[in-house]
Amino acid sequence: MSLGAIFLSEFIGTALLILLGVGVVATNLLTDSKGKNGGWLMINFGWGLAVFVGVYAAYKTGGHLNPAVTLAFVFGGYEEFVPGVAVNFANTAVYILAQFAGAFVGAAAAWLAYKDHYDAHENQAEVLGTFSTGPAIRNPLLNVTTEAIATFVLIAWVLFNGKTPAQIGPLAVALVIVGIGASLGGPTGYAINPARDLGPRIAHAVLPIKGKGGSDWGYAWVPVVGPILGALVAALIFSPHMLNALSI
Amino acid sequence: MSLGAIFLSEFIGTALLILLGVGVVATNLLTDSKGKNGGWLMINFGWGLAVFVGVYAAYKTGGHLNPAVTLAFVFGGYEEFVPGVAVNFANTAVYILAQFAGAFVGAAAAWLAYKDHYDAHENQAEVLGTFSTGPAIRNPLLNVTTEAIATFVLIAWVLFNGKTPAQIGPLAVALVIVGIGASLGGPTGYAINPARDLGPRIAHAVLPIKGKGGSDWGYAWVPVVGPILGALVAALIFSPHMLNALSI
Amino acid sequence: MSLGAIFLSEFIGTALLILLGVGVVATNLLTDSKGKNGGWLMINFGWGLAVFVGVYAAYKTGGHLNPAVTLAFVFGGYEEFVPGVAVNFANTAVYILAQFAGAFVGAAAAWLAYKDHYDAHENQAEVLGTFSTGPAIRNPLLNVTTEAIATFVLIAWVLFNGKTPAQIGPLAVALVIVGIGASLGGPTGYAINPARDLGPRIAHAVLPIKGKGGSDWGYAWVPVVGPILGALVAALIFSPHMLNALSI
Amino acid sequence: MSLGAIFLSEFIGTALLILLGVGVVATNLLTDSKGKNGGWLMINFGWGLAVFVGVYAAYKTGGHLNPAVTLAFVFGGYEEFVPGVAVNFANTAVYILAQFAGAFVGAAAAWLAYKDHYDAHENQAEVLGTFSTGPAIRNPLLNVTTEAIATFVLIAWVLFNGKTPAQIGPLAVALVIVGIGASLGGPTGYAINPARDLGPRIAHAVLPIKGKGGSDWGYAWVPVVGPILGALVAALIFSPHMLNALSI
Repeated sequence: MSLGAIFLSEFIGTALLILLGVGVVATNLLTDSKGKNGGWLMINFGWGLAVFVGVYAAYKTGGHLNPAVTLAFVFGGYEEFVPGVAVNFANTAVYILAQFAGAFVGAAAAWLAYKDHYDAHENQAEVLGTFSTGPAIRNPLLNVTTEAIATFVLIAWVLFNGKTPAQIGPLAVALVIVGIGASLGGPTGYAINPARDLGPRIAHAVLPIKGKGGSDWGYAWVPVVGPILGALVAALIFSPHMLNALSI
Repeated sequence: MSLGAIFLSEFIGTALLILLGVGVVATNLLTDSKGKNGGWLMINFGWGLAVFVGVYAAYKTGGHLNPAVTLAFVFGGYEEFVPGVAVNFANTAVYILAQFAGAFVGAAAAWLAYKDHYDAHENQAEVLGTFSTGPAIRNPLLNVTTEAIATFVLIAWVLFNGKTPAQIGPLAVALVIVGIGASLGGPTGYAINPARDLGPRIAHAVLPIKGKGGSDWGYAWVPVVGPILGALVAALIFSPHMLNALSI
Repeated sequence: MSLGAIFLSEFIGTALLILLGVGVVATNLLTDSKGKNGGWLMINFGWGLAVFVGVYAAYKTGGHLNPAVTLAFVFGGYEEFVPGVAVNFANTAVYILAQFAGAFVGAAAAWLAYKDHYDAHENQAEVLGTFSTGPAIRNPLLNVTTEAIATFVLIAWVLFNGKTPAQIGPLAVALVIVGIGASLGGPTGYAINPARDLGPRIAHAVLPIKGKGGSDWGYAWVPVVGPILGALVAALIFSPHMLNALSI
Repeated sequence: MSLGAIFLSEFIGTALLILLGVGVVATNLLTDSKGKNGGWLMINFGWGLAVFVGVYAAYKTGGHLNPAVTLAFVFGGYEEFVPGVAVNFANTAVYILAQFAGAFVGAAAAWLAYKDHYDAHENQAEVLGTFSTGPAIRNPLLNVTTEAIATFVLIAWVLFNGKTPAQIGPLAVALVIVGIGASLGGPTGYAINPARDLGPRIAHAVLPIKGKGGSDWGYAWVPVVGPILGALVAALIFSPHMLNALSI
């Protein structure tokens, strides 16, 4: 695949992911939304199905939509992201750039879809909360740990997947996301994806959101570093050698 | 396929879709319903599984059940809706006519199933809300935009689908509907389908509903124009040429 | 298959269905249950997954678990329930007898699993409500109509199924049950199955439930007649001839 | 497979299962969790999807993750757990040891992910409740019965599975867990797995949890004995001979 095709694939997939993902938090939080207070399970399904749609769009590049997934292939010493797409610097950079660009555009589109609800909403911490994650209890070291553990689960599953017979396609990863959110999302809101958090945070900072507060840049490194750490540990533990030893 | 077979297929599928779709909103809203206040996620699953059942019924015509889907094939310059069914004026007209007719009949059947609950319900805006969508914050331009964005996601997915290996059949589109509803339904109630909104609105106007209020005809154009716009943009962006370039 | 094998298959499947189905209503209603007030969507998924498990057990007989399904094959003039099992009087009787016997045993097992919670529960109408369905608004003619409409959807789907490519097995019918419950269960609690209602009602009458009230025999005919009517209408409309004409 | 490969497979799978399973209860219960009071259906999906992820990891050993499943193969006189892995004493012991070890580690990881929330939580019975199950109404004989009935359903399904055509892989057992939880989890919180309960209970006793109370050792035998009894009865009833007679 050309660099342009890789970019478009991951860009479109991540844009759809973040449009729907930011959307479901907006549905749950914003003033006058018909789905206000729909609950945590609705948010979990919303993000899971956001991945579902995004992976269909980005199927040809493996539907990463997440730099932690892309980097796991680098950390694990894999030769190809998908058949025909080598793991090299240029491809890796284009994957990640496309993911951030898509996340920015998806967040902007979600803001547009909920424009009047954003304008009507007074709690600016919640407005930021529709874009980016934040800690329930602020403690960077533990917040990084929680993000790393949750991402470890995702990356481990990605590395196991493909070895288990099942014909459900992108539904499988969507359900993994639902499960991680339900189980490990309570402390930090489960970014588990640097682009998912930083892309919309930049959008929050840039977009002309009425009466907006700060973008909490002091926390911004946590949902970047935590997922990358989790991916690194998962890729080292579940190396191709280990997977062979496990007969997975 | 004959025009009659096309009509029956889309008519039955859309009737089942709207019977179950209007039904789940009735379950959630109407007086004394056992599922009253079941919540937004229940509504999302209800509509998603309504599509699931309807697509089984209309499988041979592609399970459109939605003029926005049918028109996306026209806008995109496709030659066939499904193998053996050409994209031409007569077929397009029959698809859309059948969708509206089915939506009308499905809404009437849902009303019959909930007859005593409709009779007992005093809030006539909510009665209309079981039939048709309405805006949380009335602002036609933004409401059209929200409907267009949500429908764009649906049509994009429809165009991607079939290129991604998965053997889950109609479940895939059902989950896409669940996701769009959870994520983008908050402002307008996600018609994303002109027949889904206008067919039941006509039914609301025609049926002898006890003590009914107006059918909010001033808003009726929004969930028709918005979805068609979204389908148009999706079909133009994700043209067959673009899909090839993307290797999707 | 021998009559004994048919009996065992439908008996075991229906017993599992009703054990889980009565169980989820008990979970939702009974005093001190950890899932008390879990909500309508939980009940919908509980019944859907009850069908899921039951159909695995009764796969060889087609997983009817429901006299309305069995009778639809009779009404529709089909020659076989499944390949190798003829539609004749003896087989039909054994299917239905097994379904009622299984439903009775399943309800008794659910009562045993929740014994202390039943003993602690004072509202005897709710105790009956865990076993059998009851109308939200008592109006036999409309209640029969609602049950007929909901069962019509189920039977129509059963007749369409098998013609649509999907490899999800019993999950498909499970999701149809989730959808029917969410959308059409509000007025009568969706028996849509004579055995599902009458078997547990007999169990309620027979079991030594502490302080129990009446079994509401005056309503007992409604969830028997309604589903059979719905199956009859669906089988007549979606005859093999009609399905062929539809190319379904 | 070597004993080491069996150990690693079941260890990793059960660790992921319990990390996500303990996690979802922590999400639902602990102070300041973003998913606090997410509800019983969220817990059901959380545990179901925990099994989903775990089975992918342990696919090569059949994804037991549960001594009751492993023992059912022993009780039923099966020759192999999976093709190439004999049912003998050494393999059985390694399966079960790995399951307990994995459960301990998974619980510790969940505690780490929610560390600040555990520290902030005052109700120590709820803290224990995130690790291990407890009875809603304490009555050991009935509690054992409920656990046995719920596990009977799981083991029966495991024995039926593989005979029913469906291509959904680990999703099937995940859904069975969702269903059992929704339907039969109200009285005891559905351990249905000795390792799921005892492993985290040991972790609760061992970990330096701030201000922790007792680990309720008086109840600890119930979720061990109940599931084993249920597995025994299921394996005896659904013997290979019986399954053949049923044509399952």
